[in-house]
Amino acid sequence: VGVHAQNDSVMMANLYRKALTDGKCYQALDYLSNKIGGRLSGSPQSYQAIHWAEKTMKEFGFDSVWLQPCMVPHWVRGAKEKGIAIIYKTNKNLEIPKKLETHICALGGSVATPKGGIMAPVVMVDSIQDLQKLGRKAIEGKIVFFNRRMDEAQINTFDAYGRAVDQRWAGPSEAARYGAVATICRSMEVGISKHPHTGSMRYIDSLPKIPCAAISTYDAEELGKYIKEGMGVSFEIEMHCQTLADTLSYSVVGELKGTEHPEEIILVGGHLDAWDNGDGAHDDGAGVVQSMEVLRLFKASGIKPKRTLRAVLFMNEENGLRGGKKYAELAKENHEKHICAIETDAGGHTPRGFGLTSDSAKYQKLLSWAPLFKPYHIYEFEPHGGGADIGPLKEQGVPLMAYMPDSQRYFDYHHTEIDKFENVNKRELEMGSATMAIFVWLLSAHGWE
Amino acid sequence: VGVHAQNDSVMMANLYRKALTDGKCYQALDYLSNKIGGRLSGSPQSYQAIHWAEKTMKEFGFDSVWLQPCMVPHWVRGAKEKGIAIIYKTNKNLEIPKKLETHICALGGSVATPKGGIMAPVVMVDSIQDLQKLGRKAIEGKIVFFNRRMDEAQINTFDAYGRAVDQRWAGPSEAARYGAVATICRSMEVGISKHPHTGSMRYIDSLPKIPCAAISTYDAEELGKYIKEGMGVSFEIEMHCQTLADTLSYSVVGELKGTEHPEEIILVGGHLDAWDNGDGAHDDGAGVVQSMEVLRLFKASGIKPKRTLRAVLFMNEENGLRGGKKYAELAKENHEKHICAIETDAGGHTPRGFGLTSDSAKYQKLLSWAPLFKPYHIYEFEPHGGGADIGPLKEQGVPLMAYMPDSQRYFDYHHTEIDKFENVNKRELEMGSATMAIFVWLLSAHGWE
Repeated sequence: VGVHAQNDSVMMANLYRKALTDGKCYQALDYLSNKIGGRLSGSPQSYQAIHWAEKTMKEFGFDSVWLQPCMVPHWVRGAKEKGIAIIYKTNKNLEIPKKLETHICALGGSVATPKGGIMAPVVMVDSIQDLQKLGRKAIEGKIVFFNRRMDEAQINTFDAYGRAVDQRWAGPSEAARYGAVATICRSMEVGISKHPHTGSMRYIDSLPKIPCAAISTYDAEELGKYIKEGMGVSFEIEMHCQTLADTLSYSVVGELKGTEHPEEIILVGGHLDAWDNGDGAHDDGAGVVQSMEVLRLFKASGIKPKRTLRAVLFMNEENGLRGGKKYAELAKENHEKHICAIETDAGGHTPRGFGLTSDSAKYQKLLSWAPLFKPYHIYEFEPHGGGADIGPLKEQGVPLMAYMPDSQRYFDYHHTEIDKFENVNKRELEMGSATMAIFVWLLSAHGWE
Repeated sequence: VGVHAQNDSVMMANLYRKALTDGKCYQALDYLSNKIGGRLSGSPQSYQAIHWAEKTMKEFGFDSVWLQPCMVPHWVRGAKEKGIAIIYKTNKNLEIPKKLETHICALGGSVATPKGGIMAPVVMVDSIQDLQKLGRKAIEGKIVFFNRRMDEAQINTFDAYGRAVDQRWAGPSEAARYGAVATICRSMEVGISKHPHTGSMRYIDSLPKIPCAAISTYDAEELGKYIKEGMGVSFEIEMHCQTLADTLSYSVVGELKGTEHPEEIILVGGHLDAWDNGDGAHDDGAGVVQSMEVLRLFKASGIKPKRTLRAVLFMNEENGLRGGKKYAELAKENHEKHICAIETDAGGHTPRGFGLTSDSAKYQKLLSWAPLFKPYHIYEFEPHGGGADIGPLKEQGVPLMAYMPDSQRYFDYHHTEIDKFENVNKRELEMGSATMAIFVWLLSAHGWE
């Protein structure tokens, strides 16, 4: 076992060193972010990204590279949204009200406003539960303003996100249930900025579909203050989004065939689509280039893995998950055996660890490898984790893993216009590729047994 | 012990939460960086910083706040440096040479060039050892160009810094030993940018003092390429720096008196001076505001520490260490008992851990507390660590600690014009204060026994 572990640690050190001294993921991300940019499913940029990813993995010399078709929703934002708050004293109606131009953006999937926009008084709430307390009388004809903060005290910002995102996801239909005409939702950001954060939401089919936007945390704070001071606040909102017919798109898959157990597949993936308002550099350009880089590091180091490695760049994670669902469907049809699926979709920041959703034996195996990660400052091995794209593989019993980078800066950029290449650090990005590559090395060499 | 640890973990959680939800260090850093800026010892800004720090700690309501005088070196950069590389084909002297304007800055402490500058052929070397191999004949009358990269493969960038910085620190006098007329040194940066990194150097008194500059990694790569291609490279350098007479300055100290063991002092500190070319936001504005914040968190939470807490903002870490030396001298004279000195001087990034230089019993005590840090993702407790400012306390047997944030981005900013407030993340900075505060809580409550 001593010699064994020693060999592992040397192989891991070589892979890690190569990632830092001869990495290719940063320049790939430069291209994807700056030459292609935002690439929502069905957009011209999404097709450019598909072709680029296929070409890049072929150039890296992977054993095979293919496109996996899937039908995707096709939502377009249209012209830039307008959101104007009108502030007035409730006891002095004749005074000229104050107008504030706010920073908003439509949530993905939202319907447009009627031409010319909607204007209505604002009802501020903290949660979906508040709607029931207020009742139809207080909400009907109004614009509901969800203004619950992400909890700054959560150490992991994804935990705070999980506790706040129901306002965005379910808020519009829940507000429509009580007669609201639109919703504005405080952006999913821990701090305060003028960047609105888009993101997906879901309408309940039996309820009216009302327009829904995200408002920047800066503006949310401002409006909240006026409302708490007893001022009247109305809001004028205009959005031009449309949902077009579903369209054909593709996930992109690259593979290095295993030499000893080719039927055992280790998947590492992220999603190729990205919101239209930024360049999708962290979300999930980082995951895309890191996934490709894991396989490239093996190939460029002349390491032939015992088990098959697959980089999967899923289409449509952001607003439908069709790529992930199709991948799982085909994996089942083709009786593929995935011994692990690893998702990287939490930004290109300093690596902290992994989370594994599996049985206890595999988790214990993972823990037994923990000491090998100590030289790389990786200490976190959580007994749960996965990702949206790989989620559909769960019912086939595939062990699911999340690659976990440091979470502190992620929600500064997530789904905003500043999710850009210059906000990704080269070393932190490369260390993510390296960290996944050394785990993939261990699993490809030894399996879970 | 169970109840004991439970109480500790509750106190720690409250302090940590307060740091993230009601922190003051970020706005303090905004002032220090943007209203004061670079503040090298003896500069007008250094005195502004001293007054601001004293005022701020008094406003925080510390039990006592005082200035500790020390004489400091007073070096000034003068007008912006010029560095022009002249590239020519060595076998075709008549061809018009190519001129490249490079990004350079004087190293702190350097002498000026003669008026009008110096121009001389360049000799590129990898190390000080190379100088001896080349000998006086190859070096005399030349400008020595130290071009050894920081090792990208080092996981902790401070390790790479430690292995590269001799070029900057000792290079000028070593080159002068063989007759060089000036040196240019590749900036201490892991990546490639156009920002030159200043920093201190030391002349050996018995050797000629020659002008010495740092050159950006981008330009260093360019020159290196030309030289490797066999082109001739000369360099024209002009610098206007001066060393003025030593002058009076101050470290700033704030204190919360211990209730049970007031004679036992726990020091947390950073340095108040900062290089003149940037705003010293990471180096060491972050450490300054974090040190004050540790005490403020106790005060604002109504926690009266059993042992005395001191925030020490040392003057002159960058080019003389006079504040640190004076502090140790006075601590000895006054028979003060420091049970621990913690330095924060590694940037305002996500916390990773601590290093402790002490005896084995204290290190074991530190390790026994490690589980209490797990909720905060702190796993690193190294058996060595300290800091330049607190170093002089070592001979008095004071246990020395380094607070260790993530190191990946530090050398992007260190000693450059982009060491600015906007490159410090609010949460990461606050988590640093919080991490030190919870350690200080443990030590103030229990001591090392």
